[in-house]
Amino acid sequence: MNQLGLWIKEKLCELNLTESMNTPEGFTRLGYTNEEFAAHRHFINIARELGLTTYQDKAGNQWAVWTVDTKAPTIAMGSHLDTVHNGGGYDGVVGVLCALASIKLLKEKHFKPKKNIAVICFISEESARFGISTIGSKAIVGTLEKQKLADITDNEGITIKKAVEDMGLKWEQIDQAELQKSELDQFLELHIEQGKQLQENNTAIGIVKGIACPIRLLVKVSGVANHTGTTPMNQRSDAFVAAAPLVSYINDEALKVNDTETSQLVATVSTFKLMPNAMSIIPGEVELGIDIRSVDDELKRAFANRIKKYCLEIERKHNVSISITTLVDNQSVLLDNALNDKLINICNELGVKTRVMDSGAGHDVMNMARKWPVGLIFIPCKDGISHQPDEYATIDNLINGTIVLEKYLQLEA
Amino acid sequence: MNQLGLWIKEKLCELNLTESMNTPEGFTRLGYTNEEFAAHRHFINIARELGLTTYQDKAGNQWAVWTVDTKAPTIAMGSHLDTVHNGGGYDGVVGVLCALASIKLLKEKHFKPKKNIAVICFISEESARFGISTIGSKAIVGTLEKQKLADITDNEGITIKKAVEDMGLKWEQIDQAELQKSELDQFLELHIEQGKQLQENNTAIGIVKGIACPIRLLVKVSGVANHTGTTPMNQRSDAFVAAAPLVSYINDEALKVNDTETSQLVATVSTFKLMPNAMSIIPGEVELGIDIRSVDDELKRAFANRIKKYCLEIERKHNVSISITTLVDNQSVLLDNALNDKLINICNELGVKTRVMDSGAGHDVMNMARKWPVGLIFIPCKDGISHQPDEYATIDNLINGTIVLEKYLQLEA
Repeated sequence: MNQLGLWIKEKLCELNLTESMNTPEGFTRLGYTNEEFAAHRHFINIARELGLTTYQDKAGNQWAVWTVDTKAPTIAMGSHLDTVHNGGGYDGVVGVLCALASIKLLKEKHFKPKKNIAVICFISEESARFGISTIGSKAIVGTLEKQKLADITDNEGITIKKAVEDMGLKWEQIDQAELQKSELDQFLELHIEQGKQLQENNTAIGIVKGIACPIRLLVKVSGVANHTGTTPMNQRSDAFVAAAPLVSYINDEALKVNDTETSQLVATVSTFKLMPNAMSIIPGEVELGIDIRSVDDELKRAFANRIKKYCLEIERKHNVSISITTLVDNQSVLLDNALNDKLINICNELGVKTRVMDSGAGHDVMNMARKWPVGLIFIPCKDGISHQPDEYATIDNLINGTIVLEKYLQLEA
Repeated sequence: MNQLGLWIKEKLCELNLTESMNTPEGFTRLGYTNEEFAAHRHFINIARELGLTTYQDKAGNQWAVWTVDTKAPTIAMGSHLDTVHNGGGYDGVVGVLCALASIKLLKEKHFKPKKNIAVICFISEESARFGISTIGSKAIVGTLEKQKLADITDNEGITIKKAVEDMGLKWEQIDQAELQKSELDQFLELHIEQGKQLQENNTAIGIVKGIACPIRLLVKVSGVANHTGTTPMNQRSDAFVAAAPLVSYINDEALKVNDTETSQLVATVSTFKLMPNAMSIIPGEVELGIDIRSVDDELKRAFANRIKKYCLEIERKHNVSISITTLVDNQSVLLDNALNDKLINICNELGVKTRVMDSGAGHDVMNMARKWPVGLIFIPCKDGISHQPDEYATIDNLINGTIVLEKYLQLEA
């Protein structure tokens, strides 16, 4: 392995707070926790080794900047260092690491940029803790709905507000992380694909043209809790029995959509709560969290409406009442064509096989796209597995990504 | 309301640690908690007002005894004071209270029993905390499988062993609560029906001939957790999609059984756990807790076997692996016919309408039946609702039960 590869391998472990990436239980660094901030401290150390200046903004995003001229525009790169519960060590981390590595290469070549170059570690990108994703990049763009969020709690009942302040930040000040359009020139994120397309097509680099953002529904089904032993089968109003067909319906209908429509759609009942969840009591209430994604927003919303219609059938058939809340309904994001064309040309010049594709996963870049020209670069991950301990990308995959970023900076910075 | 009614009304609140039975959030006194022991202290106070001697056995069961002759046999009555989460104030409590009230009546009439009369508050009858029911009566009968239980934990991760010792008891000693056959003469429990049969037949007293004990299965379905946005619908192994049809199957098949078979059967998926339970991750694993009951043990076991067969179909169809554990498989219990005949005669003499019936719910009496002649008396509860805040029985229902117990003691003690 070459010297860059060895450096990447070493820093990958440092950013994951581990001696070895081969960690059966994976990595758990939820948003606004000591674990996430510990990873940020390792980021700071690496950035300073590279001669970058570092600072934390009011939302907790960690910045490292190669400043050439305070009046010059700034090209930003970056991703996040938080993870889901027992997640992988590549999701987010590779975007931060390859950005640093690209700067390392430029410095070694004594490259003299005309623009400042920044690397951002966005805070709390995953929704694993609070059900809210990309908090840090929303704060930078100015789309964080603070009032709505303040009282949302994690599984331990800790509010976002308290979690933020436990990390030494001030809740009243987090919107001060917002940047004006003029303060950044453009933004580039590199991320593992979290899918199999690159691997299956033996492709080194994916260039993303659209991000499929989710509609998320919370469906609450209310029946009547009662004793399992003394309530005859024909006198029940079992919320779980009423809800179960909805799980099959969503899966079957999504399969059909993909057979008939040109744009793809995925739909998942990914969270579930059953109450009172006791062996001797009939389920009185269940809550289903449904995640629907497609770059085709019309298709996505039509699918959500079919789910709502099906819930009306369930109400009639099973003698339950159903309430549906739309937790999230985000317009899908189209990335900057001009920027993508540059990336495609760079890959061609490098002789790196590329694939122009959509992303089924959301990333910080989708918020940044609201204010700045942005690009999203994918590198392959083994078997498309992510958000799990066996999430994996080769060092060569990271090197490829690093070189694309380096060439892009040589061209643009 | 007569003087007995007023006394019952007052003591019902005391035993529920409340000023008013009209408590929207219901009552929460889980097994081996301070709340349960606080209720026991109120029981002790009431018992002492009636001139009974009280003591706690090594398992934490609370006893109150009217001792006439230490060499004489002892007739025992009783039930429990623990509840499920946000349960009702009648399940268990009425059995303890009516037993005390019947002694009050006998004392007021200067009745001179030839046998000792005991009232037992069995500890931790509900399975709500540890998934294990009737711990106290199992200890008295000597059927508590201590080794198996020690490490079972509640939702906070507290083991039964620790919970027991936190209450000042000694885990090594709890089996010393066991009584020899000779130490009791017979046992009688009074309980709310937790069903609608008595109400629908406008009947004051139910006399139970059989108790349907459950088979409980834990079905663990393992698929593959992966990203909801990046995993195509046709490349998934979603554990929830695989398990959902099982919920419908169990309900539909149980309905059919009741149409075709003479004995009744109830089957419920009453507990459920989904992992990792995050919006952006496909369910990788789900656990279903299934409760199956019938007084017909063969019917019950045949039904459990059909569920196991259906799980094999699911494995084939959905590309998941399923493991099934039998948590509980208890023989149904037949109560003492001779004792029941006496109860029927007493009710007839009193002119109280009775119904001979089965119980779909388990009670401490089913353990006591392994060693002693036992009887189980039901009183009506409103709309059959139980294990919920709006569980309700009238004071007249309790008075009827009290009088039946009093007459029985006049005859037997």
